[in-house]
Amino acid sequence: MNALEKYIKLIDKELTDIHFPDSPHDLYTSIGYFLNIGGKRVRPILTLIAFELFDSPINQRALDAAMGIELFHNFTLLHDDIMDNAPLRRNSMTVHQKWDTNTAILSGDVMYSLALEKIIVCESLTLSQLFLKTSKEVCEGQQFDMLFETRSNVSIGDYLEMIRLKTSVLIGCALQAGAIIGGADEENQKKMYEIGINIGMAFQLQDDLLDSFGTTKRVGKQIGGDILENKKTYIFLKAWELADDNQKESIKSLLVESDKELKIKGFLELYRQLEIQHISSVLIDEYFCKGMDLLNQIEVGEEQKEVLKNFINHLYNRNC
Amino acid sequence: MNALEKYIKLIDKELTDIHFPDSPHDLYTSIGYFLNIGGKRVRPILTLIAFELFDSPINQRALDAAMGIELFHNFTLLHDDIMDNAPLRRNSMTVHQKWDTNTAILSGDVMYSLALEKIIVCESLTLSQLFLKTSKEVCEGQQFDMLFETRSNVSIGDYLEMIRLKTSVLIGCALQAGAIIGGADEENQKKMYEIGINIGMAFQLQDDLLDSFGTTKRVGKQIGGDILENKKTYIFLKAWELADDNQKESIKSLLVESDKELKIKGFLELYRQLEIQHISSVLIDEYFCKGMDLLNQIEVGEEQKEVLKNFINHLYNRNC
Repeated sequence: MNALEKYIKLIDKELTDIHFPDSPHDLYTSIGYFLNIGGKRVRPILTLIAFELFDSPINQRALDAAMGIELFHNFTLLHDDIMDNAPLRRNSMTVHQKWDTNTAILSGDVMYSLALEKIIVCESLTLSQLFLKTSKEVCEGQQFDMLFETRSNVSIGDYLEMIRLKTSVLIGCALQAGAIIGGADEENQKKMYEIGINIGMAFQLQDDLLDSFGTTKRVGKQIGGDILENKKTYIFLKAWELADDNQKESIKSLLVESDKELKIKGFLELYRQLEIQHISSVLIDEYFCKGMDLLNQIEVGEEQKEVLKNFINHLYNRNC
Repeated sequence: MNALEKYIKLIDKELTDIHFPDSPHDLYTSIGYFLNIGGKRVRPILTLIAFELFDSPINQRALDAAMGIELFHNFTLLHDDIMDNAPLRRNSMTVHQKWDTNTAILSGDVMYSLALEKIIVCESLTLSQLFLKTSKEVCEGQQFDMLFETRSNVSIGDYLEMIRLKTSVLIGCALQAGAIIGGADEENQKKMYEIGINIGMAFQLQDDLLDSFGTTKRVGKQIGGDILENKKTYIFLKAWELADDNQKESIKSLLVESDKELKIKGFLELYRQLEIQHISSVLIDEYFCKGMDLLNQIEVGEEQKEVLKNFINHLYNRNC
């Protein structure tokens, strides 16, 4: 995908151009390490494409906004890894594992400052305020996510709100940021944000679906991770809602099943009985199509829209 | 002190006026809790006084800048408490103790966003950039502080640079922030920053001195904490530098002495032999007087300067 390569090249150059002081050595080495272990750069690409919807060619302000969002995203991952006690991120050791928790807390804090430096040079109060509102919401999402691990009464509404906060608002912010810097009017900015919210929801719900129904080859990780963790995803919560008394008993037994293979097999059989894959796909399509509808309403050339549509389709590998 | 009360009242009102969402409950309750366990509000008071040097009466922008700095300071304390594994802060339980580490990480992250929201509404790129540079430096200072705990080759220069980063730059930022919002020219802004650096250094060095030579009544905590922790403060490093071979042997024995009373008594006796209290006071005076000299160079009315001088003297309880 040639268009994508152009964006990734621009983003990688910006990342390489960030100058880190030599000391304190661990603080800045760990930041450089984390930024270089990969990542699909989805959010800054969205910012750049959104910018090009309204203005071109890409300028430094657009790149700064995109970098601010990518740096912020990495900051949240770095702190999330501590909280989730995760040993690996993108097949590399997490910062708190490779260094220690204290260095990881501080590296995250500095990365957040670096993100903000990129945002404030754009000199747009609208962008800065959107960015900080989003930052707080992403933290709220993470807090809800951790809370739900031990809470038994999580509703489908709670879960959808949690993923909106943890995932979708930053996708919305990435698109609106591009629109702001590109000079879009307020109505179009809001639409871009809503497109991000909707495709973000679709993105996360599809991620959950693939965790149970994907193939290891496509997903790039073992299938059934959420099942083994008793994660209260939409899939699990919908199954619980639709289950009859017998099926509810089965779910209760499966939650405490220690044989991993039996547990995954048991849940998948239940999900099949309850047609969860289909129900989930319908909801994903709803979000996805709402996002695409909103995109169609934006009055810019079809050619520019195609780039964003192609990228979204590339992410979801589906058509609407 | 009537003038001080005016500032504290204004700051407390701003703190009370911050609206926190109801949920996630722990996330925002812990932030409110931490902001309410006290603190001398030294930094926001400095911002307000600095503002009044150049403009009056105090307006919302000055209050926003002051609050940004106070919120940032609290964010760093909250994260520092995790890293230092501190059970208490201002005689109250720390957030990671009262809730848990993950909540404390996230509460800190959100508090940092709240701080920045206050800074960016001031709509001054100079202020935002100064603030973010300061933020990174404070984190660097904390990283050096932790690093020095296990490093044997810490020089006096290393220590002074560490406290400049960890303490002084935020005092400098607080004063420059007030000057920026008050409309001071660039030269006066820089002078205000340097005043902050110098009184910040004096402040921290005096804190270290009082830890060994103060009275429990004045310091509000047990004397000798730094000695018991083998902390490489200026006092310790200077003593090591001046000690002869015999005294160096004594220091080595005292570092591993397990009897607390003997350890404190031994170090105090050595410090007395080496006249450390006097040497340290001379350095503190140097920083303090340099700060006051700079203040005298600023061309504003003597009456306004008096407020800042009185506050600085109130903090140090000394005259220059």
